[in-house]
Amino acid sequence: MSDHGFKRVALIGLGLIGGSIAWAARRHQDRPEFIGFARSEATRETTRKLGFCDEVADTAVDAVKDADLVILCVPVGAMAAVAAEIGPHLKQGCIVSDVGSVKGAVVEALSGLPGDVHVVPAHPMAGTEHSGPESGFAELYDNRYTLVTPIEGGDPEAVARLCAFWRSLGAIVEEMELARHDLVCAVVSHAPHLIAYTMIGVADDLSRVTESEVIKYSAAGFRDFTRIAASDPTMWRDVFLSNKTATLEILGRFTEELFALQRAVRTGDGDHLFDYFTRTRAIRQGIIDAGQDTAAPNFGRDPAPKAED
Amino acid sequence: MSDHGFKRVALIGLGLIGGSIAWAARRHQDRPEFIGFARSEATRETTRKLGFCDEVADTAVDAVKDADLVILCVPVGAMAAVAAEIGPHLKQGCIVSDVGSVKGAVVEALSGLPGDVHVVPAHPMAGTEHSGPESGFAELYDNRYTLVTPIEGGDPEAVARLCAFWRSLGAIVEEMELARHDLVCAVVSHAPHLIAYTMIGVADDLSRVTESEVIKYSAAGFRDFTRIAASDPTMWRDVFLSNKTATLEILGRFTEELFALQRAVRTGDGDHLFDYFTRTRAIRQGIIDAGQDTAAPNFGRDPAPKAED
Repeated sequence: MSDHGFKRVALIGLGLIGGSIAWAARRHQDRPEFIGFARSEATRETTRKLGFCDEVADTAVDAVKDADLVILCVPVGAMAAVAAEIGPHLKQGCIVSDVGSVKGAVVEALSGLPGDVHVVPAHPMAGTEHSGPESGFAELYDNRYTLVTPIEGGDPEAVARLCAFWRSLGAIVEEMELARHDLVCAVVSHAPHLIAYTMIGVADDLSRVTESEVIKYSAAGFRDFTRIAASDPTMWRDVFLSNKTATLEILGRFTEELFALQRAVRTGDGDHLFDYFTRTRAIRQGIIDAGQDTAAPNFGRDPAPKAED
Repeated sequence: MSDHGFKRVALIGLGLIGGSIAWAARRHQDRPEFIGFARSEATRETTRKLGFCDEVADTAVDAVKDADLVILCVPVGAMAAVAAEIGPHLKQGCIVSDVGSVKGAVVEALSGLPGDVHVVPAHPMAGTEHSGPESGFAELYDNRYTLVTPIEGGDPEAVARLCAFWRSLGAIVEEMELARHDLVCAVVSHAPHLIAYTMIGVADDLSRVTESEVIKYSAAGFRDFTRIAASDPTMWRDVFLSNKTATLEILGRFTEELFALQRAVRTGDGDHLFDYFTRTRAIRQGIIDAGQDTAAPNFGRDPAPKAED
């Protein structure tokens, strides 16, 4: 299990992602030690109680000083400040990684780290709408993708070790080029989140349709939007600000397409709508076939079909 | 259980909604007889095999002739033709209802029915992304809302009986004014569906991001959109064409709001984004508090958090 060879891993940030890393690793006997740090005293206290870290340090500097792997599990916008703080105290030759949803901006934020540490950015494509130290769980990464995006001129051995570490957490690991990562994520994640946030905001604003009616009848489709719009606000603010170009490009495409459908509604072009909806239905089937979602109706949250007794 | 007093119920259309009506009723000993009809011979054959109807008729006219309740479970765009066909053969004093997602257009489609039958439109706010005679199940309506939208000058007793019927299927029944129904549904259902369809279409169109990548990494948010965009294309085409005004109004609001967020991304206005995302998160909590969705991460489709062993 320990092909990666890490003995001491520092987690900077102890929310859903950081906590789940520790929980996932603790399923193995042969696992590294985890030293955690979070800026908030309350989070450190909760982490001590929950016990997923072997040690909780009171400063980021204390957490990283003997670590051979440091993982930054903080919002993308906070990475530069953390890097500046810990940089001078990192162990020589250690690997510094992160879990940010945007890679271009992270590489920039970490560019000031000493030359004798290896930067290997990574992005676990897993999560839930919950956040905080109590939200982590051991299975979060099981059979989900973690994308590792090596930097130019980076050390291949450091990349291989980080990949092995993520595999030991249960993830399927793939390498991807940095810029491509940011575009793919704009499509599969960033734009959908911004759109979901927007739809919720519209519903909230409509004074003629009271909040209670929207909530009451949300099962009609709206509630799926609210789940993804319930994710951590700080994290998402940083994602959009740091993946601006790709997000705006996809949103531009989205608006163009939405206007075409709106026009079909306005002009009563039923064939256009029917063809469009038939095509999109096939994509859903692709996702189920690829094992990325359940085919159970409504994600299985409603009772399953039963034969008559 | 039979406050409604119906002895013989005709289901015109034997898909998810019609099938689930029969399955739901069959949980009670004291239940009406169900006579089903569907335009497609294959659907009628499947229904005979599945056995959720007591009888499957070969014409709509045969299905309705002795029924004291007729429920049209066909797409909104097909209702006028069905009404014209069955109108002359309806039993005097029977109740004709429907399950359409749009009510204004349905009332118009049914306006040619004989004066001695009672039209009582209804809309069960439940469904899954599956369709066809095999997709129905007994629990679909349990604790979900069914909105009954009485027509002007309609018979209050007929309304009361239809409400009792839906309650016997497990639904929470509420009455709502017709036009309000169509606006509320545009917000909670129609606009979200059109937006989800659009986002899937955008992803499909992007040649630089191959379909397989979008599918592979869909867990990052995109898959929630694909579920609601997998629903029946004919049904949804008709919904948009027949609830045009309200849908376009909500989409107009949506675009306005999306442009404001896009602008915040472009100009780097982090506070605007943060405040917006904080507000939308609260709405999600409202839906969970109201019992309209599960608080389990990712709708419970991923493994639940576990304590360390």
